[in-house]
Amino acid sequence: MTARDPTRYLPELSQAQASLTHEVTALDERGRLSTLHIPAERPLTVYVDKRELVTLMTLGGAPEALTLGYLRNQRLVRALEDIVSVQVDWSVDAVAVVTRSGIVDVEERTAKKVVTTGCGQGSVFGGLMDEVDRITLPADARLDQTVVYRIVETIRAQQSIYKQAGSVHGCALFSNAGELLYFIEDVGRHNAVDAIAGRMWLDGLGGEDKVFYTTGRLTSEMVIKGAQMGIPFLLSRSGTTQMGHMVAERVGMSLLARCTGKHFLLLTGRERLVFDAMQEWR
Amino acid sequence: MTARDPTRYLPELSQAQASLTHEVTALDERGRLSTLHIPAERPLTVYVDKRELVTLMTLGGAPEALTLGYLRNQRLVRALEDIVSVQVDWSVDAVAVVTRSGIVDVEERTAKKVVTTGCGQGSVFGGLMDEVDRITLPADARLDQTVVYRIVETIRAQQSIYKQAGSVHGCALFSNAGELLYFIEDVGRHNAVDAIAGRMWLDGLGGEDKVFYTTGRLTSEMVIKGAQMGIPFLLSRSGTTQMGHMVAERVGMSLLARCTGKHFLLLTGRERLVFDAMQEWR
Repeated sequence: MTARDPTRYLPELSQAQASLTHEVTALDERGRLSTLHIPAERPLTVYVDKRELVTLMTLGGAPEALTLGYLRNQRLVRALEDIVSVQVDWSVDAVAVVTRSGIVDVEERTAKKVVTTGCGQGSVFGGLMDEVDRITLPADARLDQTVVYRIVETIRAQQSIYKQAGSVHGCALFSNAGELLYFIEDVGRHNAVDAIAGRMWLDGLGGEDKVFYTTGRLTSEMVIKGAQMGIPFLLSRSGTTQMGHMVAERVGMSLLARCTGKHFLLLTGRERLVFDAMQEWR
Repeated sequence: MTARDPTRYLPELSQAQASLTHEVTALDERGRLSTLHIPAERPLTVYVDKRELVTLMTLGGAPEALTLGYLRNQRLVRALEDIVSVQVDWSVDAVAVVTRSGIVDVEERTAKKVVTTGCGQGSVFGGLMDEVDRITLPADARLDQTVVYRIVETIRAQQSIYKQAGSVHGCALFSNAGELLYFIEDVGRHNAVDAIAGRMWLDGLGGEDKVFYTTGRLTSEMVIKGAQMGIPFLLSRSGTTQMGHMVAERVGMSLLARCTGKHFLLLTGRERLVFDAMQEWR
């Protein structure tokens, strides 16, 4: 982990804890009773300056970072300095955000809904696509094939709620040398992305020399969020969709799909990948 | 397929067609160029009586049914008779819905957002959970284990966009005898559920003697949508979450998770399953 600069501004944050799995019993095909763990899923209602904004359904592993990342990726708050405090209280499934000067045009900015693909009906406020054309990712960024393999192996070996309970998505931020910076799981993959955006905000990390990994599909909104975070490399164990592919080409992002073991499919931004593991095949 | 009663009211519907896959090229780990198909993902902006309501990101396979099911599941339109026409025009990625008397309190009813779990940030208008407590599913409904196996096998053998291009979710409606009624895929699983709700509305089918199958996870919103459709059985190849499990118990729905081959985990509403295939294990 990169050490946090002690002189950086930080809002007041709660450190809310919640259990991430829940034990249930089930009957299998032979009528045998078994016990299994399933992931927690809880509502987190976001209040900004005492005004109800939205309710996020979340695993609950990183509620403060999720709240910050949501406000950041929805472009509702521009700078971390605008946020005084983020206080999560699971006893009422709510998070209270206090800002310095409120959210400008909150009515107007939360009016337009784009119901996105992760579940087919996500909600993104404002014209995200308008923003895409203003984003340019570093053309000279490079990623080694051996680093791709290091990232895939790191994820494979990572302790996770998924391994224990399934039914969650994982996202991770890596340095372009393959160092794991953050790993966050959530019942919703977009929550996991937002929580990582929140952590990057808190730690003052830029995306230009980072690699983003997701277990989820590379749909348009995932690619847009990655672009918003300024990250030139987006890796997934899964595949992509036509619009995810189109947006990646538009912003010049390198998409690597179907990353498992030593396999991947480099879809876009191909010039950025350095094939330094070709001897593997000789 | 059950034959449609010719005397039933039907709105005027377009029959919009769009290509469901898109061909792209990729470099694999050995630098070899290959061609693959990825699912389409396109915006469909819903206009109700010329008022913009929402933009759905969809595969585009059943836009009229998706629009109807969305309006139905969001409880924005109560009866099919209230809808005069649904006209999809892919040249402008829009669908124009004409109603008889408009949507009552559309402002108020589309104001409250619950950002749900499918993608972590779905959008459900209104207090869906309030509705849950008013739903009761038929306690005497039964499902044979052999029918569960027939359903799983039917899905396995089904021609699909998934097999061709991956990265889509499939949903299906079956009779309680295991007859496939509808199979719909979408980039978002909640869209696929809504499209099936639209088809049920058009065909005047109730849910009480049906079985719903989804390739996606049994999260709270999926269970709520199943309950709204009055379907007592919800099957998934995947798992469930704590709130999906909780809602299923609350409405008395039978949840079967991890349905693959001859395996399943019967989580809730256990009294409804008839173990008529136990000899398989003897």
